[in-house]
Amino acid sequence: MTRFEGIHTPIPTPFAAAGSVDEAALRRNVARWMATPLAGLVVLGSTGEAPLLDEDESDRVVAVAREGVPAGRALIAGTGRESTRATIDATRRAAAAGADAVLVRTPSFFKPQMTAGVFVGHYARVADASPVPVLLYNVTAFTGVTLPVEAVERLAAHPNVAGIKESGSDIGLIADLVACAPEGFIVLAGSATTLVYALLAGCHGGVLALAAIVPGACVEVQALVRRRCVDEAVALQRRLLPLARSVGSRFGVAGLKAAMDVLGYEGGDPRPPLVPVSAETRDLLRAQLEDIGPRLTGAAAPPAAQVPRGR
Amino acid sequence: MTRFEGIHTPIPTPFAAAGSVDEAALRRNVARWMATPLAGLVVLGSTGEAPLLDEDESDRVVAVAREGVPAGRALIAGTGRESTRATIDATRRAAAAGADAVLVRTPSFFKPQMTAGVFVGHYARVADASPVPVLLYNVTAFTGVTLPVEAVERLAAHPNVAGIKESGSDIGLIADLVACAPEGFIVLAGSATTLVYALLAGCHGGVLALAAIVPGACVEVQALVRRRCVDEAVALQRRLLPLARSVGSRFGVAGLKAAMDVLGYEGGDPRPPLVPVSAETRDLLRAQLEDIGPRLTGAAAPPAAQVPRGR
Amino acid sequence: MTRFEGIHTPIPTPFAAAGSVDEAALRRNVARWMATPLAGLVVLGSTGEAPLLDEDESDRVVAVAREGVPAGRALIAGTGRESTRATIDATRRAAAAGADAVLVRTPSFFKPQMTAGVFVGHYARVADASPVPVLLYNVTAFTGVTLPVEAVERLAAHPNVAGIKESGSDIGLIADLVACAPEGFIVLAGSATTLVYALLAGCHGGVLALAAIVPGACVEVQALVRRRCVDEAVALQRRLLPLARSVGSRFGVAGLKAAMDVLGYEGGDPRPPLVPVSAETRDLLRAQLEDIGPRLTGAAAPPAAQVPRGR
Amino acid sequence: MTRFEGIHTPIPTPFAAAGSVDEAALRRNVARWMATPLAGLVVLGSTGEAPLLDEDESDRVVAVAREGVPAGRALIAGTGRESTRATIDATRRAAAAGADAVLVRTPSFFKPQMTAGVFVGHYARVADASPVPVLLYNVTAFTGVTLPVEAVERLAAHPNVAGIKESGSDIGLIADLVACAPEGFIVLAGSATTLVYALLAGCHGGVLALAAIVPGACVEVQALVRRRCVDEAVALQRRLLPLARSVGSRFGVAGLKAAMDVLGYEGGDPRPPLVPVSAETRDLLRAQLEDIGPRLTGAAAPPAAQVPRGR
Repeated sequence: MTRFEGIHTPIPTPFAAAGSVDEAALRRNVARWMATPLAGLVVLGSTGEAPLLDEDESDRVVAVAREGVPAGRALIAGTGRESTRATIDATRRAAAAGADAVLVRTPSFFKPQMTAGVFVGHYARVADASPVPVLLYNVTAFTGVTLPVEAVERLAAHPNVAGIKESGSDIGLIADLVACAPEGFIVLAGSATTLVYALLAGCHGGVLALAAIVPGACVEVQALVRRRCVDEAVALQRRLLPLARSVGSRFGVAGLKAAMDVLGYEGGDPRPPLVPVSAETRDLLRAQLEDIGPRLTGAAAPPAAQVPRGR
Repeated sequence: MTRFEGIHTPIPTPFAAAGSVDEAALRRNVARWMATPLAGLVVLGSTGEAPLLDEDESDRVVAVAREGVPAGRALIAGTGRESTRATIDATRRAAAAGADAVLVRTPSFFKPQMTAGVFVGHYARVADASPVPVLLYNVTAFTGVTLPVEAVERLAAHPNVAGIKESGSDIGLIADLVACAPEGFIVLAGSATTLVYALLAGCHGGVLALAAIVPGACVEVQALVRRRCVDEAVALQRRLLPLARSVGSRFGVAGLKAAMDVLGYEGGDPRPPLVPVSAETRDLLRAQLEDIGPRLTGAAAPPAAQVPRGR
Repeated sequence: MTRFEGIHTPIPTPFAAAGSVDEAALRRNVARWMATPLAGLVVLGSTGEAPLLDEDESDRVVAVAREGVPAGRALIAGTGRESTRATIDATRRAAAAGADAVLVRTPSFFKPQMTAGVFVGHYARVADASPVPVLLYNVTAFTGVTLPVEAVERLAAHPNVAGIKESGSDIGLIADLVACAPEGFIVLAGSATTLVYALLAGCHGGVLALAAIVPGACVEVQALVRRRCVDEAVALQRRLLPLARSVGSRFGVAGLKAAMDVLGYEGGDPRPPLVPVSAETRDLLRAQLEDIGPRLTGAAAPPAAQVPRGR
Repeated sequence: MTRFEGIHTPIPTPFAAAGSVDEAALRRNVARWMATPLAGLVVLGSTGEAPLLDEDESDRVVAVAREGVPAGRALIAGTGRESTRATIDATRRAAAAGADAVLVRTPSFFKPQMTAGVFVGHYARVADASPVPVLLYNVTAFTGVTLPVEAVERLAAHPNVAGIKESGSDIGLIADLVACAPEGFIVLAGSATTLVYALLAGCHGGVLALAAIVPGACVEVQALVRRRCVDEAVALQRRLLPLARSVGSRFGVAGLKAAMDVLGYEGGDPRPPLVPVSAETRDLLRAQLEDIGPRLTGAAAPPAAQVPRGR
């Protein structure tokens, strides 16, 4: 498997009671994920509440995660900012802190000006300056803009642009991204409800919030697809669907953090203005996790046994 | 294969020079499609320019198509109108003219009022009154509204609601529709760029504009999926992608009619305000059809040999 | 005052218990409106549930209204259809039935194809064929498309295009429409919450659902603006705001019909799939009407005294 | 006139050739604006390319501007961030640097979570913590979210929430904001194409990019409205319309900076990924400025004479 293929999870950032980043909690989560078959972790993605962190916190998150992620696994850091120069700065700092690649969200504030040409100019400069491979990142639901396929096609020719994460569930668009790119250009799915289809369309893996709580199941979906046990893959994905919705579009990162709490991860509250889920939602998440069962969530296994590092 | 499964095509309505429906041309097209392995035809869909036809024309299109479609193939008629009573009237007339089922587009004009409850009320009355099975029809790109999954779930319990055509390419939504419906509820894909994935998600077939020009290839895609030759299915679908875009979102029904002209079908011009494609687009379509090749378009076979019925 | 200037109301279509158009009720309503200072009536607009009526019903509505509207007042008929030919047919029939002008909603179903050029082609043909002046009609909230200012500018040069009704509340767009048009081109506001500002921007009047229940107040707003008593106009409009919302975007035509019932007009239920408002909404409307007071609604005057015709 | 009433301009941030903030240029621009009748300046707004500046740069912009803005004029600083804590930090720093008030853009990244309750919670905490009055700031065109009127109504009761800037041109919404707020709550228009109407609806002034190049004309518009010379106000505003479009939605901040260059202000290039306007656009802006004439742009007066301060 090439680099950046496989199932990654965009990890949440845990906060201490006073509101600062809880580095110890982050360390514990990372260690536990490293006991799963995940190909790698994405820090500072949307799920990591990256837009709510300051620059120093962002740098620390990369460094702390790096300590827990061995060389064999990918550590990808979100470094997209609105300005090209801030994106380059964040990219260099993330690389210096040990990130294997950066995931660069589209700038989006000045929407009417975000043309294909502007996107190409932005990403080309970032890729020129980045010490590590650059992954494009399109997440229309949050940004309100869409990176055009023609821009991706042009950027895929850049030697330091390694791939793209497409967060939506438009399988026609995903197939277009695969089709437009040269051999070796990585396309990662960002939606767990779309994973099997995206993989069959030629995606090389995924960056899935769902994988933070059911990593083994998400990896199994891809393994089933690789062995072309498509019906089993679809069936497994369908079992995960209600939970995928809950930690995705329905309750967002607050939902994912609550589900992590249920499983013994360090979830906690999101940073304001985001608010925690209600008690009812917490109960719903608990029930959905029980429906899925301990085999898929891995909750039955004693956490200690899942932490290889520090031995 | 149950009724309404398999690959259907939503046939365009040919117009004579003076602008009226060209029934003879329609007959010739239908005969030629009946020489292909298509499971059935949809008349009076969006591709049939249904919103541009009057009630009498609509009735004639059903009747003329029925003459050419034998009992073993499905003839489905679009009968959605903005009012419930007009929808019921059109539905009864289509059934009387021989339609095997009706495909009922969501009402959409009064957008703020189109709640789940209003959709359920509308479709339940139509299904109560219809002499033939009702297929729901969601096509957000044209209507600007989306039939909620919860409404589909409730309507799927109605004994005379046989299924749904979902025209979009959101594979997460398509999977939800399959998941929400009881055994036997038909879900048909409406986008050729999505077909393989939709079928793997549990769809039972498709209603594809692309199938009007490459019916054999579309049927082969589904056959490959059925035999779980998924890679071959994806590869074949990818070959069809540029053409699918051209006769889909890019050039619309005018593009499909021009492609039909190239292949010797009766395409012609769309009805105003729609305008024919430019000469450049026509050349592009010709080139895309040549790229696909005669085996897939069936253009090499002498049309006469493909028309078994009515002779 | 030139033709088509001033305050018009887009009248609802009353239905009998069995669901057919209640012509007697329509006649009574028209008679009552003719006892108000309204400049004219629009039949078969969105508020008239035009998309829910069939062609015969539409023709009858024009004819019945014409009987009640004397020559000195404008009778404008909505005749927009998706196809150019159906629009021309409906336009000719409406003219034959006595309409002084037609109000032609943009075609909108095939959204990706609705370019400025297509709109210009459509309206130019309709205007060429129409025996009476044509008013363009843009209502993005319902159609999902917007007639571009450049298209309006080109169409305003057509001798039989008399003006436009813009239904939205984007005052920048309204000012652009006024600025792009030659002297004598009528621009009518379609939103009661926007009336004063639209008039000051150069609009010549309005087509307001609100004017069906408080015609005198709406006419007074324009009179105040004409005399440049702007503060009084704004103050009066503000008093009408809650009611304007209720019979506009909030509850739609069902809300307007319920408010008419309260005032002794023939309101009744909308045609399915539209549903009547709830009892709570009916109470709210009653309270809002009472807040406005009998002077503005004219409810205090005995209905009989307000019906001059038929004596 | 109360504080924060009147015409303000959201000033662009000039950059030196190397890409850093050009403080000397900023100083010169501020001095020149202080020679105009503008009520105040907004730094770090959307037009100030605030999302493209880092925290240190932002602080310097406030401090440098403060040096040039005397106590009698308002200096308002944009301090909206995605997180509540970063917004509070930026707010305190801006107040410490001398800002008279802060303009706080809605958080918007996690769109599905941005409910009325979340907005109220966010702004209430910011207002609690802010040493200076808080102005809410809604700019849907850039953020993709809209601050609901009900949230504004609740926040207007907070003693430290002084008002709102609404950037859109929906005059119905603007009238609602005025109507929902208590006496003394400031509503500022953000669109020059809407100014007269917004003022008549009860707005207390504006924050207008256009005012950076034609400050006198914008102030004159409000003065005309105050004297109820409404026709003259509308006529003047209409003369400014093409230029308002050019430096607004059409060419954005790059257009405004190019227009400033024409007039002898320090405009320069925007920060990447934004790109400068083309030579053709520059010519168009020059022509539009010439059409407006030296009286309105003030270009005829020798710049030296317009810079009273610091000499």
